[in-house]
Amino acid sequence: MPKTAKIPKATITRLSIYDRQLELLEFDGYRVVSSEKLAWLCQVNPAQVRKDLGYFGEFGIRGVGYDVIDLQARIKEILAINRTWNLAIVGVGKLGSALIQHHNFSARGFKCVAAFDNAPDKIGKRIPSGLIIQSVDQLKDTVRELEVEIGVIATPASTAQMVADFLLDAEVNAILNFSPTRIGVPECCLVENIDFTVMLDVLVYKVHHEPKEPRA
Amino acid sequence: MPKTAKIPKATITRLSIYDRQLELLEFDGYRVVSSEKLAWLCQVNPAQVRKDLGYFGEFGIRGVGYDVIDLQARIKEILAINRTWNLAIVGVGKLGSALIQHHNFSARGFKCVAAFDNAPDKIGKRIPSGLIIQSVDQLKDTVRELEVEIGVIATPASTAQMVADFLLDAEVNAILNFSPTRIGVPECCLVENIDFTVMLDVLVYKVHHEPKEPRA
Repeated sequence: MPKTAKIPKATITRLSIYDRQLELLEFDGYRVVSSEKLAWLCQVNPAQVRKDLGYFGEFGIRGVGYDVIDLQARIKEILAINRTWNLAIVGVGKLGSALIQHHNFSARGFKCVAAFDNAPDKIGKRIPSGLIIQSVDQLKDTVRELEVEIGVIATPASTAQMVADFLLDAEVNAILNFSPTRIGVPECCLVENIDFTVMLDVLVYKVHHEPKEPRA
Repeated sequence: MPKTAKIPKATITRLSIYDRQLELLEFDGYRVVSSEKLAWLCQVNPAQVRKDLGYFGEFGIRGVGYDVIDLQARIKEILAINRTWNLAIVGVGKLGSALIQHHNFSARGFKCVAAFDNAPDKIGKRIPSGLIIQSVDQLKDTVRELEVEIGVIATPASTAQMVADFLLDAEVNAILNFSPTRIGVPECCLVENIDFTVMLDVLVYKVHHEPKEPRA
């Protein structure tokens, strides 16, 4: 396997998307898929599919295509999602609650094992997933005890940095940040930000600036 | 203003992030900010800030910095977020409900004016924001009547394409897709995808493959 530093983030993102479509193909009974079909399903071009996979070796048979089950297994191994990862969510407001119960997390092997909030009326309550909301004061002990690997921040912007500092203190090395602000972390911690309204800003910029094709 | 085709999406994304930090600086009473400080707040390097803004003309005064209010106004104009945009959300499950009520949408000028679902027990119910959930059958008429410009898909993957087709039929030209699948749309429609677990896959890939620095 090549050094990961050489592999574009966009390639990793697309591998994740290929994997989803391969799961759907398997579910629909397909055993083999061409790069053309996989590309079409993922809204990319076939050369991109071949280039992305090419970073990681030889896959598929020329003129035949990829084995749906084998390619899934290889991608899951590359992405390190061939095992379960333990998450903790901090901030059990409406968004945090929706995330905890979101089928898509568990379906993809991400297990929410702990939930934290600092609102006194929330601490100690059992949420539908069965978890009991804990105080942020318990974060460090719980994270270590339950071997949490990823922290998910679903708090308002104003408390996001404080939560990040708690997660760092508990030696969590990866954070998915849903709060609408950037958090400062040392190099040893990896962060991905999901800010809906940044995506909306990008979308409206395009709508405003890019001339529309007339509809057929 | 240059042709937008030349401007990287990453620049547009960062403009949106700069704007948020400028709002916070204004709130904190700052009148001027250096590119170094703005860069630090946004977790990028100062040369990047200057390059991003450079696409759109001259901003700031050498040796002094940027006027916090003026730069905000210029960025909002560039992004076309100096006005309100009407959204409709399709899929009022836990995630859709959380999004409708998310403070961050309205704070950034995105107004959710309609909500749709096709579950009989949801249609006709009033949600906390005051909206009444409508049947997807009413989507086309409502979208036109209320001048909805952006459709937000918050349904499961299995119904996302059907919803996208309804939105296209109603001539919505921009879609923010939260469903964990890619949707097929014609060129005239712009789509941004937000799939949490794709982001998690990218994060765990990095955690697994990138050697960690020892902690101090």
